[in-house]
Amino acid sequence: MPDIDFWYSIGSTYSFLSIMRLDDWCAENNATVKWRPFNVRAVMSEQRNIPFAGKPVKSSYMWRDIERRAAKYHIHARLPAPYPISDLELANQVALLGMTEGWGKPFTQALYRIWFEDGVEAGSEDAMSEALFRCQLDPLPVLARARSPEAERALSAETEAATALGVFGAPSFVVGNEVFWGDDRLEDALSWAKVGHVV
Amino acid sequence: MPDIDFWYSIGSTYSFLSIMRLDDWCAENNATVKWRPFNVRAVMSEQRNIPFAGKPVKSSYMWRDIERRAAKYHIHARLPAPYPISDLELANQVALLGMTEGWGKPFTQALYRIWFEDGVEAGSEDAMSEALFRCQLDPLPVLARARSPEAERALSAETEAATALGVFGAPSFVVGNEVFWGDDRLEDALSWAKVGHVV
Repeated sequence: MPDIDFWYSIGSTYSFLSIMRLDDWCAENNATVKWRPFNVRAVMSEQRNIPFAGKPVKSSYMWRDIERRAAKYHIHARLPAPYPISDLELANQVALLGMTEGWGKPFTQALYRIWFEDGVEAGSEDAMSEALFRCQLDPLPVLARARSPEAERALSAETEAATALGVFGAPSFVVGNEVFWGDDRLEDALSWAKVGHVV
Repeated sequence: MPDIDFWYSIGSTYSFLSIMRLDDWCAENNATVKWRPFNVRAVMSEQRNIPFAGKPVKSSYMWRDIERRAAKYHIHARLPAPYPISDLELANQVALLGMTEGWGKPFTQALYRIWFEDGVEAGSEDAMSEALFRCQLDPLPVLARARSPEAERALSAETEAATALGVFGAPSFVVGNEVFWGDDRLEDALSWAKVGHVV
């Protein structure tokens, strides 16, 4: 079965559902998913794609839809979470650094819990430090490394890779050349990986 | 079980999937759905919600996603269909007139086939006339009635009713006070109607 790449951005609201349910889902479906943080804000800004700012009705709906679907997946959440987040770039640079060092996934999961359960904005130094603590890491040196030009370049390179694949929003699941946008397309992506079409 | 209202607009691309699959889906699920055409363009314009214009990557994805999901539902389509359509108001005034006279649903289904299978833009007089012919109606007098101030007012009233419910896009399914946006939320709407939460 081809791999499923999970492109997400800390800062994306719907990514919460995928981040919280993917481990169980992979175990149930005997699937492997590669977690790939990128800078969705840069992509959407470039494409003039502004889904929620200045759109109160659509924004309210988004929170209600996430609330209903979180309940469906038995995921705890206190909504609405603070939105939008401030330092999206740094949060995803930390996550990407963590992916190369083996703690990127638990960091992301801890940070989303802090954001969606405790109500602390995910781009804040408080939230990131707490998430790193929960991964038994010393926040200050990690944040310093995540602010380095190398870490910035690494996130830019991943963001360019996502864009080259046709990814325009988060979360997206990519199987070969096929992009599946949205937590609600996870099953479509699995189906594509298994049989080459959506069932 | 509470009713499910199906708010759609001729002119909405994702409404195609619902319009083509709802009859079979209702039979399979022993569900009743009320078809309610409205003017989604007026609502989205008011809310400055412009999902596809000037967004080529997102637009390409939309057609690919519809193509994959149409195949999943065994619905024939020749994509991309001409988009956007010209006279969205008139097409939906015809459909709403038809809802009061018993031919609104077959007219809508015929018009989407003409648009998505034959490639004739659904807001054109050619497409609307052909769809009315297929419903064994004489197009000229129907189109004249659909252009009347009464028909305009009727569509405006339905559009206001949709807005009051929190509908901001098409298709939307509404159960009581709950809005479910997108063809992919039809199962969530049914679940809500049956048990009051999403399963």
